[in-house]
Amino acid sequence: MALIRWGIVSLLLILAIEPASSSRSFILMPTEKQSLGKGEVEMYCESWKLTVETNNAGNWGQVPEKCLKYVIKYMSGKQYLSDSEAVTENALAFLKKLPSTGMGKDAWVFDIDETLLGNVLYFVTHVNGSQEIDEDFMNDFIELAIAPPLPASLRLYKVVQALGFKIFLLTGRSEFQRNATETNLRNAGYSNWERLILRGEADQGKSATVYKSEKRKEIEDEGYIIKGNSGDQWSDLLGYAVAQRSFKLPNPMYYVH
Amino acid sequence: MALIRWGIVSLLLILAIEPASSSRSFILMPTEKQSLGKGEVEMYCESWKLTVETNNAGNWGQVPEKCLKYVIKYMSGKQYLSDSEAVTENALAFLKKLPSTGMGKDAWVFDIDETLLGNVLYFVTHVNGSQEIDEDFMNDFIELAIAPPLPASLRLYKVVQALGFKIFLLTGRSEFQRNATETNLRNAGYSNWERLILRGEADQGKSATVYKSEKRKEIEDEGYIIKGNSGDQWSDLLGYAVAQRSFKLPNPMYYVH
Repeated sequence: MALIRWGIVSLLLILAIEPASSSRSFILMPTEKQSLGKGEVEMYCESWKLTVETNNAGNWGQVPEKCLKYVIKYMSGKQYLSDSEAVTENALAFLKKLPSTGMGKDAWVFDIDETLLGNVLYFVTHVNGSQEIDEDFMNDFIELAIAPPLPASLRLYKVVQALGFKIFLLTGRSEFQRNATETNLRNAGYSNWERLILRGEADQGKSATVYKSEKRKEIEDEGYIIKGNSGDQWSDLLGYAVAQRSFKLPNPMYYVH
Repeated sequence: MALIRWGIVSLLLILAIEPASSSRSFILMPTEKQSLGKGEVEMYCESWKLTVETNNAGNWGQVPEKCLKYVIKYMSGKQYLSDSEAVTENALAFLKKLPSTGMGKDAWVFDIDETLLGNVLYFVTHVNGSQEIDEDFMNDFIELAIAPPLPASLRLYKVVQALGFKIFLLTGRSEFQRNATETNLRNAGYSNWERLILRGEADQGKSATVYKSEKRKEIEDEGYIIKGNSGDQWSDLLGYAVAQRSFKLPNPMYYVH
């Protein structure tokens, strides 16, 4: 575990000190020559990102190779923070107009990865040439419990909590990751959630949309009213037992079906 | 009518020749001083636009004053064309995998304004200081029938047509605008649609979501299978009798409920 942590830190250092024009690119290895000028690549990647965020792209497989740099730059930079803060502002505007049921049954559902916690650090260091997610590395990374909070979501979480909502954390992570997940959430500043729901034995193999809809339905069947739902994947938000309002956080790094 | 046309042309000329830093801004009149630097305003507007396109913003009223320039620049520039082409690519990828019913009952629904036809010309010239749409001017503009096609949508339209789909044009425009609408569509290169559906007497006052859902339902009740739906508003795409796949074209200029 210490080795992995050191590996991540050293990779980050390499990333930080390596000039953009270096030929010994460690993280990004575009195998096809980029035939477009820089402006055109950016325009293409901007358009591609928009198709992903609007769900026009549907079930997309992976980041186009020529957009890897663009995506990592975006996820590591101010625009991503600004974009997620704007989503929190949308949620706050919704909350402002929302009458409370006053029965302690108002609920808000949060996804975890790329919603409450940010894993860009993992992606910057572990997305390989074919841009596939290495499940083992991802699990190791989760065990480290070092993912930082997404500031916009932490802000919303605290407001939602102060308003008396019951908070349900609904994640695609599995039961065996409960301890690390709780530790990471607490270290990142989250506390006092009503329930943390992870994939159990019976949930393995289900699509995220089905698994999450089923779990939201269970929450509703207990008498809760899901007023809001925050997630970075459309599969966090669509299906059935959908929230009164759903908030899609940006994530051009990967797609979860 | 000739006067209006001349007015638009002259306003466009003024827009074209006026230096960006001029104090006698004709079209954009920000009444509050922009306190943020240019980079920060752009970042803010970029984030705002994303909340609109993802429907996170919900029922938004108008373009933030400090984003008026950003929006007009976007809608008049290459990024908008690139973004809409990317949506057409999504639709083409969907069509490629789609088995035909082979019964002549495959249908595709297109919205008109900001989907098949582009009205940025109107907005650049007629959005007033409070950014409200002037219905009279809009109606006059529609009568001119001079809106150009959105190239990405014209491209998709022709492919969909060549594949044997029945094309339904479903617009919030009213029956009294049928002639001008048909003229404009033909001038812009569209032809041989199955049906042009405009708001009749009974449809006035209905929300776009309800009106368009009702009309899609009627199409389905005739035995058609709506495989795809293209629109720039979420109210073109959501509700009931939704298409198998919906494609959201960009429009940060206005919101239709």
